[in-house]
Amino acid sequence: MKTSPGNFLEDFSIGQVIRHATPRSVWRGDMQLYMALYGSRFAVQSAKSFAVAVGYPRAPIDDMLVFHIVFGKTVPDISLNAIANLGYAEGRFIKAVYVGDTLSTVSEVIGLKQNSNGKTGTVYVRSTGYNQRDEPVLSYVRWVMVRKRDEAGPAPETIVPTLAPVVDVAMLGKACPPIDCNLWDDELSGSLSRFGDYEIGEKIDHIDGMTVEEAEHQLATRLYQNTAKVHFNQFEEGKGRFGRRLIYGGHVISLARALSFNGLQNAFHITGINGGRHIAPLFAGGTVFAWSEIVGKSEVQGRSDIGALRVITRATRDLPCAEFPTGEATATTPGVILEFDYWVVIPK
Amino acid sequence: MKTSPGNFLEDFSIGQVIRHATPRSVWRGDMQLYMALYGSRFAVQSAKSFAVAVGYPRAPIDDMLVFHIVFGKTVPDISLNAIANLGYAEGRFIKAVYVGDTLSTVSEVIGLKQNSNGKTGTVYVRSTGYNQRDEPVLSYVRWVMVRKRDEAGPAPETIVPTLAPVVDVAMLGKACPPIDCNLWDDELSGSLSRFGDYEIGEKIDHIDGMTVEEAEHQLATRLYQNTAKVHFNQFEEGKGRFGRRLIYGGHVISLARALSFNGLQNAFHITGINGGRHIAPLFAGGTVFAWSEIVGKSEVQGRSDIGALRVITRATRDLPCAEFPTGEATATTPGVILEFDYWVVIPK
Amino acid sequence: MKTSPGNFLEDFSIGQVIRHATPRSVWRGDMQLYMALYGSRFAVQSAKSFAVAVGYPRAPIDDMLVFHIVFGKTVPDISLNAIANLGYAEGRFIKAVYVGDTLSTVSEVIGLKQNSNGKTGTVYVRSTGYNQRDEPVLSYVRWVMVRKRDEAGPAPETIVPTLAPVVDVAMLGKACPPIDCNLWDDELSGSLSRFGDYEIGEKIDHIDGMTVEEAEHQLATRLYQNTAKVHFNQFEEGKGRFGRRLIYGGHVISLARALSFNGLQNAFHITGINGGRHIAPLFAGGTVFAWSEIVGKSEVQGRSDIGALRVITRATRDLPCAEFPTGEATATTPGVILEFDYWVVIPK
Repeated sequence: MKTSPGNFLEDFSIGQVIRHATPRSVWRGDMQLYMALYGSRFAVQSAKSFAVAVGYPRAPIDDMLVFHIVFGKTVPDISLNAIANLGYAEGRFIKAVYVGDTLSTVSEVIGLKQNSNGKTGTVYVRSTGYNQRDEPVLSYVRWVMVRKRDEAGPAPETIVPTLAPVVDVAMLGKACPPIDCNLWDDELSGSLSRFGDYEIGEKIDHIDGMTVEEAEHQLATRLYQNTAKVHFNQFEEGKGRFGRRLIYGGHVISLARALSFNGLQNAFHITGINGGRHIAPLFAGGTVFAWSEIVGKSEVQGRSDIGALRVITRATRDLPCAEFPTGEATATTPGVILEFDYWVVIPK
Repeated sequence: MKTSPGNFLEDFSIGQVIRHATPRSVWRGDMQLYMALYGSRFAVQSAKSFAVAVGYPRAPIDDMLVFHIVFGKTVPDISLNAIANLGYAEGRFIKAVYVGDTLSTVSEVIGLKQNSNGKTGTVYVRSTGYNQRDEPVLSYVRWVMVRKRDEAGPAPETIVPTLAPVVDVAMLGKACPPIDCNLWDDELSGSLSRFGDYEIGEKIDHIDGMTVEEAEHQLATRLYQNTAKVHFNQFEEGKGRFGRRLIYGGHVISLARALSFNGLQNAFHITGINGGRHIAPLFAGGTVFAWSEIVGKSEVQGRSDIGALRVITRATRDLPCAEFPTGEATATTPGVILEFDYWVVIPK
Repeated sequence: MKTSPGNFLEDFSIGQVIRHATPRSVWRGDMQLYMALYGSRFAVQSAKSFAVAVGYPRAPIDDMLVFHIVFGKTVPDISLNAIANLGYAEGRFIKAVYVGDTLSTVSEVIGLKQNSNGKTGTVYVRSTGYNQRDEPVLSYVRWVMVRKRDEAGPAPETIVPTLAPVVDVAMLGKACPPIDCNLWDDELSGSLSRFGDYEIGEKIDHIDGMTVEEAEHQLATRLYQNTAKVHFNQFEEGKGRFGRRLIYGGHVISLARALSFNGLQNAFHITGINGGRHIAPLFAGGTVFAWSEIVGKSEVQGRSDIGALRVITRATRDLPCAEFPTGEATATTPGVILEFDYWVVIPK
């Protein structure tokens, strides 16, 4: 068969390695589209002169853009028939990505579990993005709920991988060159607050809200070559449970990250993803707000230039975050739609 | 007069050569916007490393992006007052276009025919796109229905050009460098199916559907510097026959081409356009599906690396293609909106 | 406080210098997005080969794109809490900007005046954009109405700067290299009309209309890293005086400039901004038309290649401009929404 209908639970087996299609070069044009889509303002990614001054060879590609491209490649093989994207863990940015690099992705199946209803199950994969020199640039685990092709068929052996609740601090900072903190210009970066100025337990309302249009999330999701049907096909989705296209969860992460600039101006690089939950869907017309809590601080091994903050950023739909809401949205009620737990690095 | 009202039937004469305005350099940013607009996934255009491995000096500009830019320049002179874009023929991609090339277009009037109503007529032009070295990169014929300025005026002499129903196979492959098929990685390209795996008469449902938003087709059409009024001006179109902006027909072609990846993954290059008909209009909110039929196969002269498939791709509006529909849509009913007959090359 | 709530009237003082955050490199991808957003067709910005032929080292970045980026940086500090953007004056493009340049902005407060209601006031700033070599590329004055934080507090001393009604002609042309008019190809540029062909008092209807979508102005405004809340947050704006997001006024300027190509094809470079008034708001769904009047002509000091035209371009909402309308729109009635008074240079 020349067309791919996507894989079902039976198509996966533990240890299976899938080399995903469509390598993708990353260009300046991607960064500028990314800026137009989210309004990102972190100085290292925005300005070549700033990046070079502090120690990068050139302005690096935004971390979440790398994530989305690496992720997009896995969709046709892993989640084309997914019912839900359940979670992420053990995400590590291993090497900086620059303009002209070509990314491709390989996934290994590390867990399988049929649900008690016999109709669906969970697949766990570890996906690794590589550049054109076959160097890993990003690795993460995600698990998705997929349909069984044949409900009457046997269940796969249940194997649920043990996943670290938090990325080991010894693994952080790998994609970040040495930073010259004396040349880090706090006026240009937008804030005087550095590593020492953040405290565990501190909560930050990122204030601004951003309303999402259909054209915007479709442009973004196609840019990532993410082919999940639910994002693009109103003809089908109009008949589905929500009556609407569902916005790619990664779009919400990127919005929240861009909004978080207002309060985390110097946290220039996401170095690890501890976990992420898409709690409720976002539809076009919804307005996304965000707030963050500092839940951990750590030295970065062998580094005196940067420290790491463990941050949980919550994005809401149609709910400003001045009171740091934790109530979960549903498909129809406002509230938290994303909980994203990650490590950022920040100059000392 | 400093502003151009566009040309009418009387303004054209057989043999007239029009050198169109606004040369246009093509950049990576165009490719990335093109990816964001259509989600194209052919490996040669997507990845520098893949393109270079198989024999390109670098990743080439997508064929249809070249077409749209070359086409866009002709609009102010040829079709600003067009009632309908009636057809294409004898399209040939002659030379690959790379980032940094500057395209401009020259058209020759090769046919004229007043309609029996005396109010309109058909103009046939052969348009050729050139790069900055004055090398032709693309040539095609199109014919459009335009208004007469003065209905009482004399009819032009009727000259209807004889057009080849199919591009001569001797003309194919000119824009494609020698391809090293041993280095063509079928996992990365997304399919094992090569030239020998396709049969005449074979039909392929491309499965996926893509809903189009106003902002998307407007961004695309402006990117091509195509100024046709019907695509942009809701104030006027709201009073017109459809009450809505009409989507540029080329947008449908690019959507269909991108959707056709699912089934034609290795057909990396459009080398000839035999014909194309825009059967019914597409409006924002419509969902485009597509299916293809292999209607011919040919060796490419002097080439053992690639073969050519003649494909007819039909795009539909709001109609999935599992049953390979041929029923034509109208402005208000679902069905086929585009029939596009073209040659692609594919590795052997 | 780590997040910025923006500044209020009391936060400004005469002579205060603000070095704004987020330097921003400008890339080809920005130009291509700019083209997709407005459909600009001026040959010098569109084609490298044309630009180089007439004397540029490479195609320059569009003037208004430079303006929007330089302007965007000032928003978090100057106009985040602005009620209205009242005017511009003394705008001068000082140095051409090319791909790879990094822009940053410094503003000086040059005027303050509390309104008689005691609740608001006007702040005048002179903002200067610099490239990565600290060379000024653009300078302009703007004044905005902002809220007082504490209405009971004392009023600042009133200082209203004296602003030139028209940019001194001795200051024009600084960002334009010597142009070889013999190599200026009028067919490719789109018009035979040069400096000598325009007369003071001449009025030009630019004919075409362009309808704006929410996704389009949001993409544009984020691309400029302009964070003004009113453009993005439907949740808040839905409860506000218009019930809708307000479109960035600069988006209207860029639309009008792109539409003005039809009639000012050879006026390739904006060299000065005498003034600008945003008369009425634009909302998504509105269609923008434009017309221009030539209100002045001048030699450019020390230049025989180019002359300068002083142009007032009026943009309307939902009102074609064949009769050169001057009636001002309101939030709900059609009419003029922008009056933009500027100098362009044009070959002799």
